[in-house]
Amino acid sequence: MRKLNLFTDFYELTMANSYFVEGKEKEIVYFDYFFRSLPDEGGYAIFAGLDHLINYLLNLKFSSEEIKYLEKQKIFDQGFLEYLKTFKFSGDIYSFKEGSPIFPNEPILTVKGNIIECQIIETYLLATLNHQSLIATKAARIVGAAQNRNIMEFGARRAHGHDAANYGARAAYIAGAAGTSNTYASYKYGIPALGTMAHSYVQSFPSEYEAFLAYAKTYPNNSLFLVDTYDTLEIGIPNAIKVAKEYLEPNGYRLKGIRIDSGDLTYLTKEARKMLDKAGLNDCLITVSNSLDEYIIKDLLYQGAKIDTFGVGERLITAKSEAVFGGVYKLVALEYNGEIVPKIKLSDTVAKTTTPSFKQVYRLFDNKNMAIADLITLREEVIDESKPYLLFDPDYIWKQKEISNFKAVPMQITIFKDGKLVYKKPSLNEIRTYCQESQKYLWDEMKRLEKPHKYYVDLSQKLWDLKKELIKSYRKQ
Amino acid sequence: MRKLNLFTDFYELTMANSYFVEGKEKEIVYFDYFFRSLPDEGGYAIFAGLDHLINYLLNLKFSSEEIKYLEKQKIFDQGFLEYLKTFKFSGDIYSFKEGSPIFPNEPILTVKGNIIECQIIETYLLATLNHQSLIATKAARIVGAAQNRNIMEFGARRAHGHDAANYGARAAYIAGAAGTSNTYASYKYGIPALGTMAHSYVQSFPSEYEAFLAYAKTYPNNSLFLVDTYDTLEIGIPNAIKVAKEYLEPNGYRLKGIRIDSGDLTYLTKEARKMLDKAGLNDCLITVSNSLDEYIIKDLLYQGAKIDTFGVGERLITAKSEAVFGGVYKLVALEYNGEIVPKIKLSDTVAKTTTPSFKQVYRLFDNKNMAIADLITLREEVIDESKPYLLFDPDYIWKQKEISNFKAVPMQITIFKDGKLVYKKPSLNEIRTYCQESQKYLWDEMKRLEKPHKYYVDLSQKLWDLKKELIKSYRKQ
Repeated sequence: MRKLNLFTDFYELTMANSYFVEGKEKEIVYFDYFFRSLPDEGGYAIFAGLDHLINYLLNLKFSSEEIKYLEKQKIFDQGFLEYLKTFKFSGDIYSFKEGSPIFPNEPILTVKGNIIECQIIETYLLATLNHQSLIATKAARIVGAAQNRNIMEFGARRAHGHDAANYGARAAYIAGAAGTSNTYASYKYGIPALGTMAHSYVQSFPSEYEAFLAYAKTYPNNSLFLVDTYDTLEIGIPNAIKVAKEYLEPNGYRLKGIRIDSGDLTYLTKEARKMLDKAGLNDCLITVSNSLDEYIIKDLLYQGAKIDTFGVGERLITAKSEAVFGGVYKLVALEYNGEIVPKIKLSDTVAKTTTPSFKQVYRLFDNKNMAIADLITLREEVIDESKPYLLFDPDYIWKQKEISNFKAVPMQITIFKDGKLVYKKPSLNEIRTYCQESQKYLWDEMKRLEKPHKYYVDLSQKLWDLKKELIKSYRKQ
Repeated sequence: MRKLNLFTDFYELTMANSYFVEGKEKEIVYFDYFFRSLPDEGGYAIFAGLDHLINYLLNLKFSSEEIKYLEKQKIFDQGFLEYLKTFKFSGDIYSFKEGSPIFPNEPILTVKGNIIECQIIETYLLATLNHQSLIATKAARIVGAAQNRNIMEFGARRAHGHDAANYGARAAYIAGAAGTSNTYASYKYGIPALGTMAHSYVQSFPSEYEAFLAYAKTYPNNSLFLVDTYDTLEIGIPNAIKVAKEYLEPNGYRLKGIRIDSGDLTYLTKEARKMLDKAGLNDCLITVSNSLDEYIIKDLLYQGAKIDTFGVGERLITAKSEAVFGGVYKLVALEYNGEIVPKIKLSDTVAKTTTPSFKQVYRLFDNKNMAIADLITLREEVIDESKPYLLFDPDYIWKQKEISNFKAVPMQITIFKDGKLVYKKPSLNEIRTYCQESQKYLWDEMKRLEKPHKYYVDLSQKLWDLKKELIKSYRKQ
C-alpha cells in the first residue's frame, strides 16, 4: 500500500490546523459529493472509484516522515502535529454503489465526520471518484454505441500516466469494456488482457507473409494479424488468407481474426469481409482501431461496416471529448449540540446554490422495473409506496407528476460507520454486473448520444421547503 | 519503488514471446519517440518525464509472481518465461534533456536495444513521456499568458487520479508554475505548496468576519482570505479590510492577500484593487481562480484585470483543451551483422511516413543565440559550423535558406549505454531552470497562442536522400 496521506490540497491542512487551534476539532459536519452537469451532454453518468476510496480511508495514517515534512513548513501548531500522529478516519460514509447510474445535483456520497477529517480526505475523494466516474461514463457511451460488439480498452500509452491507465482500465471494464491491452490492469484487477501484434512486429521480418507465418506458428490458436502495415486490401488480407490456407488449416487451425488500424474503416471492413468470406473464412473476426470513440463507432455501424471488435485507445482512456468530471464536495450541514443545522452556499449562478442538510436519494421504479425519477429527501423521510406521490421539478415547480404503483429504492447505503467499514466490498466482476444490470432499467431515450432525454431528479416537498427557507433567510441578511 | 514491470501492452509480450521462439531475441533494433502535431496548435512543446523513464528502466525486473501470472495465460513459451526471470534493460537511450522545447517529427528519444526489450518498454515510455510532456506544454502556454505573474497549479481534485495529479504538478513546475496546491507533490518533489482556505472554512464559522479573524490569528503572517463565499464586494472585501485594520495592523502584520473564485474576474479585481488601495492595502495581493486557462488569462489581462497570482486547476492538470499528447514510438532501423539497415513505415497519409535510420537532431542558433531551426541528420553526420549550410523544407523542398555564422548543438545526448545509466540526472530545479532558459532562445512569434510562427524542422540532404530512396524502393515492390 502506498502512502498517499499527503495527497491532499495544502489548504485542507492549513484549514485543519486552524480548526484545531480554534478548538473545533470535534465539530461534526456533513459534506456531499455531487456533480452539476453530465460530460458530453449525455443522459447519465456511471459512478466509479468507491473501492479505491475505501482502501484510502482504511489506510489513512500519517507517518513520522510525513509529519516531519509538515513541521518544516513552520506554519503548523505543535498540538496539531501531535494530533496528526494518531489521526485516522473516524466518520461515516454513505454512498451509491459503485457502478450505479448517477445524475447531476444528487448527493452520490455523503461524509459525516469531524471537520478536520472531512477536509483532509476531500482531495483524494474528489480525484479518485472524478477520474474513475469520468472514464466509466465515457466507456458506457462507447460500449452503448458498439451495440453488443466487444470494446477493448487500448489506451495505456496515451493515458495520463500509468496509474490513470490502470484505474481507467478498471473503470472501463466496470462500464462494459470486454478487456484491456494493459497487462498490469489484468494482473492487478483480473481484467481480461488481449493483444497480438504491432506494425513493428511485421516490419521486423523480411516480409509481411513471413511475419504472419511466424506468428501463426507461435500462436496457432490465436492468430490475429495486423494487416495494414503495407496495404490492407492488396497485400495484408491476401497474406493473412495465404497463411490460413497454407499453414493454419492444414494443421487443423482456423484464422482467428484480422485487425485494421488505418484507412477508411467502413470501406476496408466491407471489402475485407467479402474477401474473407470468399476464402471460406466466415468465422474470421474483424477488429478495428485508430482514434475511435462513440461518435465514429456509431457512424461506422450506421454505414454498415463489418466489425466484430473495436479497440478504443486515447479517446476513452482520457475521455478526450471532455476530460474533466466536475464532481464537487460541499459542506451541507453542521451539528450543534447533536442537532443537524443545515447549511447552504448561495451563488449568483442559481445552479451553484447547494441543496442543504443530510439527505437520502430514492430511485423510483415503475411496475415494469424501469426508472421513473430520483427523489432527494431529508434523511429521515419515509416514502410510503402504497400511496400516490407527487413529483415536481425543483427548477420549474409547475411541472408536476403524480405517480403510484411505484417502488422507492434508497441509493445511499452505509459504507463506513464511526470509521469502521461496515460494507462488504463487492468484487470487480460483481460491480461490473451491477453496472450492466442497472443500465437495463434506464430508458433507451436516455442513452442517445445526441440530446438524450433528461432524467428527473426531484426534491421532496420537505427538502424543497427547507431550501427555500434558507435562501430567504440569507437574502434577509 | 512500485513494481510496474507488467505495465506494458499485452501485445508487447505476445510479440516478445514470438521473437524469442523465432530466435530473434538478440536482434538489435532502433526505435524513435516522436510526435506529429502540437497540442492546441501551439508553437512548441516541452519535453518532460525523462526522469521517471530512467527510474523505470533501472528497476525493470520481473518478479516470480508476475511471471506466474504470465504462465497462467497459457500462451507463453517456457523458455521465454525463463528468459524473463533474468531480463533487464541492456540497451542504449539517447534523448533530449528534460525541459527542452520540442517540435513535431524529430526524434526526441531513441532506443537502441534488442527487439524484446525495445517492445516491452514501449508502453511505459509512451505513457510517461506523453503525459508529462502534455502537462508541461499546457503549463508553458499558461505561464506565458500570465506575463510574469505567478501561476499556481491547483488541479489535484480533477486530475486523472492521484498520480496524474502528482506527475502533472511536477510537469507544470518544470514549465514554470510557481507552486502547487498538492501537498504530496511538494513532499515528494520539493515543489512549493500553497493554499489557505476553502468556502467550507468560511461556512463553518457563524460569520465570514469570524472566519477571517480566526484565520488571521492562526496565520498572522500568511493571511490570505477567500472573499466570495457570500458577496465579494459587499461583504467579503469589507470583512477582509476590517480584519486587517482591527486585528492584523494593530499587531504589526499586513493583510497578505485575497482570493476571488467566482464572478467576473476583470470587474471584481479592478474594484477590489480600488477598495484595497483606498484602505492603504496597496501591498495586498489579489489571487483569482475558477476554471482558468491561457485564453481566459490573456483576456483578463488584456482587459486590465488587477491580478497578482492565478490559481489554475482542471484545465491545466488535464490539459482539457486537448487532453492527449500523441507521441508515438516507431521502429526506424534494424541491425544485420552489425550493419544498420534503415526501415521506413509507409502510409497513405504522407505525414505518417516515418523518417528512417539512426539519427541525431541539431538545434541551430544564430549569432545572437536565437534558435533558427532544428536539423535532423544521420547519426554519423558532422555539421561544419565554419561553412554555410543549406536548409530546405522536407515537405516543400523549394523552400531553401542558406545559413552561416551559426552554432549547431546536438540535442540527443546519451542517457543509457549498454543498459548502464551514464547520465547524471539533474535535480528538478535544474530541469526547471533549463526549461526557462531554453524558452528564451525561442522567438516571441512562436509563443503566440493563435497561429504562432512554425519553427523549421529540416532533414539533412543525406537523410532526405535516404528517405526518398527507401520510399522509391517500396513503391517498386
